Amino acid sequence: MALDSVTIRAEFPILAQEVNGRPLVYLDNAATTQKPLAVLDASRRYYEEINANIHRGTHHLARAATSAHEAARETVAKHLNAAETAEVIFTAGTTDSINLVASILTLSPGDEVLISTLEHHSNIVPWQMLCERSGATLKVIPVHDDGTLDQEAFRGLLTERTKVTAFNWISNAFGTVNPVLEMVAAAKSAGSLVLIDAAQAAPHLAIDVQALGADFVALSGHKVYAPTGIGVLWGKRAVLDALPPWRGGGEMIKEVTFEKTTYNELPFKYEAGTPNIEGAIALAAALDFVHGIGIEAISAHEKKLIAAAAEGLSSLPGVKLYGPADRAGALSFAIEGVHHYDLGTLIDQMGVAVRTGHHCCQPLMARFGITGTTRASFAVYNTAEEVEALVTAVDRACSMLR
Amino acid sequence: MALDSVTIRAEFPILAQEVNGRPLVYLDNAATTQKPLAVLDASRRYYEEINANIHRGTHHLARAATSAHEAARETVAKHLNAAETAEVIFTAGTTDSINLVASILTLSPGDEVLISTLEHHSNIVPWQMLCERSGATLKVIPVHDDGTLDQEAFRGLLTERTKVTAFNWISNAFGTVNPVLEMVAAAKSAGSLVLIDAAQAAPHLAIDVQALGADFVALSGHKVYAPTGIGVLWGKRAVLDALPPWRGGGEMIKEVTFEKTTYNELPFKYEAGTPNIEGAIALAAALDFVHGIGIEAISAHEKKLIAAAAEGLSSLPGVKLYGPADRAGALSFAIEGVHHYDLGTLIDQMGVAVRTGHHCCQPLMARFGITGTTRASFAVYNTAEEVEALVTAVDRACSMLR
Repeated sequence: MALDSVTIRAEFPILAQEVNGRPLVYLDNAATTQKPLAVLDASRRYYEEINANIHRGTHHLARAATSAHEAARETVAKHLNAAETAEVIFTAGTTDSINLVASILTLSPGDEVLISTLEHHSNIVPWQMLCERSGATLKVIPVHDDGTLDQEAFRGLLTERTKVTAFNWISNAFGTVNPVLEMVAAAKSAGSLVLIDAAQAAPHLAIDVQALGADFVALSGHKVYAPTGIGVLWGKRAVLDALPPWRGGGEMIKEVTFEKTTYNELPFKYEAGTPNIEGAIALAAALDFVHGIGIEAISAHEKKLIAAAAEGLSSLPGVKLYGPADRAGALSFAIEGVHHYDLGTLIDQMGVAVRTGHHCCQPLMARFGITGTTRASFAVYNTAEEVEALVTAVDRACSMLR
Repeated sequence: MALDSVTIRAEFPILAQEVNGRPLVYLDNAATTQKPLAVLDASRRYYEEINANIHRGTHHLARAATSAHEAARETVAKHLNAAETAEVIFTAGTTDSINLVASILTLSPGDEVLISTLEHHSNIVPWQMLCERSGATLKVIPVHDDGTLDQEAFRGLLTERTKVTAFNWISNAFGTVNPVLEMVAAAKSAGSLVLIDAAQAAPHLAIDVQALGADFVALSGHKVYAPTGIGVLWGKRAVLDALPPWRGGGEMIKEVTFEKTTYNELPFKYEAGTPNIEGAIALAAALDFVHGIGIEAISAHEKKLIAAAAEGLSSLPGVKLYGPADRAGALSFAIEGVHHYDLGTLIDQMGVAVRTGHHCCQPLMARFGITGTTRASFAVYNTAEEVEALVTAVDRACSMLR
């Protein structure tokens, strides 16, 4: 069943605006999504009705705020099919979540961390820092010319030295969907801990952490219709229970003396200080919004748009698409003789917002011998008319630039 | 000049509610403040008009969002009288800011970190972790019976081994205002780095980081009328430039290859990943709100309320006040024969919201041989009538409990 775009778009007031007298066509969703009224209202209602600091208050508002915050955790846990609500840790975003994991792990010289060429800087740099700190070695799964990971090479790189394997589910740069179930199973067989960067998967796919079998899943609220400043680290209880805390402060402690401090249970062990209470509540509202439409329906809708965009852009002269045909979320392309920055700037003047550049994936760009691409990325509110507007704008810009 | 409470309270819709048929009297401001409409509107306007991911976008919304985010940084820099805007780093809050500093410092066995007995857990635990990691020793400035720090002992504890000195400006538990100018000067003379936990100072005092002379100042947005999930670390450029990065990811890098990653300049070096864009913008709106009234006027207003509360509570039988007579923000007390939890629960039923317990200051409570206190804490919107309501409620609760 097709989505009711009119009703959905009415939930996003920002989309009604014009840029240079043209309707805004927002195709930068892999960078951040827009927020529905249900999310904005949840956030505002929190502050107008129950705002208080949580967990330690005996008064009416503190109890209401604590209930709302913990209900939000429950919503996230259900969304991820976590075995336990306490496995859901609220963070500031995917980057924060990955840094948390990379910071609490202890490795030794000779140990290896395995990542992939498709990774965002946030799933590269924390592991480089861990390797630098510990003397471990960073290994990298290569990528085929079609933007898919070399699975044979991956299997070859997995050894008993592999202590951590971290890769994304969907590439933010190329829209590649990695075969995560098989990859997680292989890495687990090798005895490695596995972290999945689900920042780009969260808006497009159902995530079942128990079926996935990884140890950690990281995601950001702002990529799935929630505000900035909130994210999630899901982690297996048995793994997190055995690891040390990260940030110190209120909430994460059981008892503090100047001689000895003992730490709290999950999830609070990893939630030092006043959390982003509003953000957690708004994230739950965003997930409710997604469920209200259905993630499968959203995904099917987006797939149609991406396929239409791929077809439309391919028909233009000199266009090269990156990534495999079966993409999710994002479509990256280059045009012979046209710099992505110039293209992005020109189509912006026609109202079309895309992202240009390296997409925080410099090693991937280097692998393809480019400095960047132009990337159109899609969300529930995008339409077939917007895909046409994109193709028309790119066509027009090319004739102006060449 | 007295504040116009009617106009100010109209900015805070939450305050108009009733609890159990009584007007809400919100005196838990040291835990978190309520948010004025100006802040809620700024946040909402951001999402309804210009939301996009920042710094790397060529399109209209990305430029508008980037400008707004960087204008917010400028507002914070001016508010703090920072020498440079780039010295303002956005974090998730005070706890995050202090952990950032404690994580990037390298100490050696024999080095000392000096904190005080008045500290919040968030200014204790990160330093304990640093000491544990590095073999350095934690030293603690003792506190007098009146809740002020022992300045003579402080001077005695400062030696050439003191590498970091960290203390709060205002105690969240007792409202003690530390003589920060003198303390910073003494610690700097000893060659120590100095961090000021300004979480409780930000809502009550003007902060001039250049006059202060410290190396780091940490604060939270949510304690100064801004949302949760946003905070600030101000740091001296020369100091931060010489220190390594903390979290790795997008934005904080200059160039990433799998072999070698180079890091960005301040402030981005310490801002990995998509920041809390909305939060930064709302924090700037909150500081504008404070400036619109004037921090001196706010402070004078609160001082009158605290003095009235101290007088009213002292007149009740068996009441013991903690902290010096010259308090800011918070007033902590105990009542003979009445447990703070029972007191808090009972007066909550009368509409009065205070905090009870250890206030994340277990070592301070241990020093005074107590498990907690009842704490009333004040903000710009509180009134003399609310102080009366507090005293009446405490009086009534005591007669019920004894």
